[in-house]
Amino acid sequence: MAEDLKEAGGKVRLHVAAPLSAGAAVAPDEGQAHYLLHVMRAKAGDRVMLFNGRDGEWLAEIAEARKRDITLRCLSRTGEQKEVPDLWLAFAPIKKTPADYLVQKAAELGVRALVPVFTRRTIVTRINAERMRANAVEAAEQSGRLSVPEVREAVSFDRLLAQWPKARRLYFCDEGGDAQPLAEAAKGQAGPAGIFTGPEGGFDPAERAALRACDFVVPVTLGPRILRADTAALAALAIWQSVAGDFPAQH
Amino acid sequence: MAEDLKEAGGKVRLHVAAPLSAGAAVAPDEGQAHYLLHVMRAKAGDRVMLFNGRDGEWLAEIAEARKRDITLRCLSRTGEQKEVPDLWLAFAPIKKTPADYLVQKAAELGVRALVPVFTRRTIVTRINAERMRANAVEAAEQSGRLSVPEVREAVSFDRLLAQWPKARRLYFCDEGGDAQPLAEAAKGQAGPAGIFTGPEGGFDPAERAALRACDFVVPVTLGPRILRADTAALAALAIWQSVAGDFPAQH
Repeated sequence: MAEDLKEAGGKVRLHVAAPLSAGAAVAPDEGQAHYLLHVMRAKAGDRVMLFNGRDGEWLAEIAEARKRDITLRCLSRTGEQKEVPDLWLAFAPIKKTPADYLVQKAAELGVRALVPVFTRRTIVTRINAERMRANAVEAAEQSGRLSVPEVREAVSFDRLLAQWPKARRLYFCDEGGDAQPLAEAAKGQAGPAGIFTGPEGGFDPAERAALRACDFVVPVTLGPRILRADTAALAALAIWQSVAGDFPAQH
Repeated sequence: MAEDLKEAGGKVRLHVAAPLSAGAAVAPDEGQAHYLLHVMRAKAGDRVMLFNGRDGEWLAEIAEARKRDITLRCLSRTGEQKEVPDLWLAFAPIKKTPADYLVQKAAELGVRALVPVFTRRTIVTRINAERMRANAVEAAEQSGRLSVPEVREAVSFDRLLAQWPKARRLYFCDEGGDAQPLAEAAKGQAGPAGIFTGPEGGFDPAERAALRACDFVVPVTLGPRILRADTAALAALAIWQSVAGDFPAQH
């Protein structure tokens, strides 16, 4: 259903690659051009918000709108560049629909980077990184973020641990065994952090032992119920943001 | 794809209506019978777990398995009846796929009751309560819960406030205006509680004013980003469980 850009009240936000500065002309990509012209029926003079992850948020107007061609022009900066808290999500890939959902929700919940990790019990063998990136961009646009979460190359479990930066705490969501509740473990720990959630079948015993042997790993629990892989990831992100991230920032 | 009940290692859990006691015969409903016979290829002697929300968790065996007919028999009680924390989720109904997801995730996150509420900006006009209940049962079975979240009749916004039990704190997720972070507002408040999340367009100003005028309402924020309706509900449930509910219980 076609909407109207004016009715959207300047709430349409687009992530672009180009530099943003007063008077700068910006050409949206093909998908954005289609969206503006044919979904939102953009006309010259209509306004949108732009961000590129570096130059803050900008009010822009449609400078020209033809059949397939649309140019935007930056008017004024409406917000300074701001980063989300330094939180990564390492997760065992899951099938398509839950994966879409996971990426979207993780972006809304303010994750900085997403790292797909192939664990022993991971059933999914291929991931669609392009699709993940598209979902991340769309969620960033809608959530008011000024940056898009980075979708990293998928890595093996062993590689994740070998390459993990030692100064970054990794909260490993462990379904079995003794672990602190995440809200207690992360409370006030504002430094760089990561959350690691397993596949539907959980981590295998060797993986759990390997994780627990790392100095940077903090095993945590998400309560007494069994959570699906995507639920666990989202719950952990929300809890971390509320005790160590920026959920309290508006207070 | 057919699986095997033995391979599932006694992890199949079914919610039934019948009373459960040692030696009791239990007839699963039609959907469960189909699942056991044709998806899990159940044979006499195979084992499953049963719960009914009253009598704890029971190990049961397939007593008889014919083409369309299957009877279970309770063997021994494996767990005492346990309730989830006293948390309700009042939410503006959303369209089908996110609604399925919301009910499933809310059940996993240990909500006791779900209350659909029609607010002024709610776009969805009908809800499928039966579908919600089926999703709630399935998620309860998979999450290890011993009770199914109750799906209440949908109510209007005004009715929700008029009928709300005064002793139950209602955390109202407010996108605009001054509000405490939920993790701070709910910390250690273990009593009966509810979370109220709005539709995609948020609550309207009159609704926000009406909520803030109620003694039992606590306005809360879920951080600086704009969350989709379902993301907000799940984030709020996870945060509440971790500061006032049972996420710390395993510690």
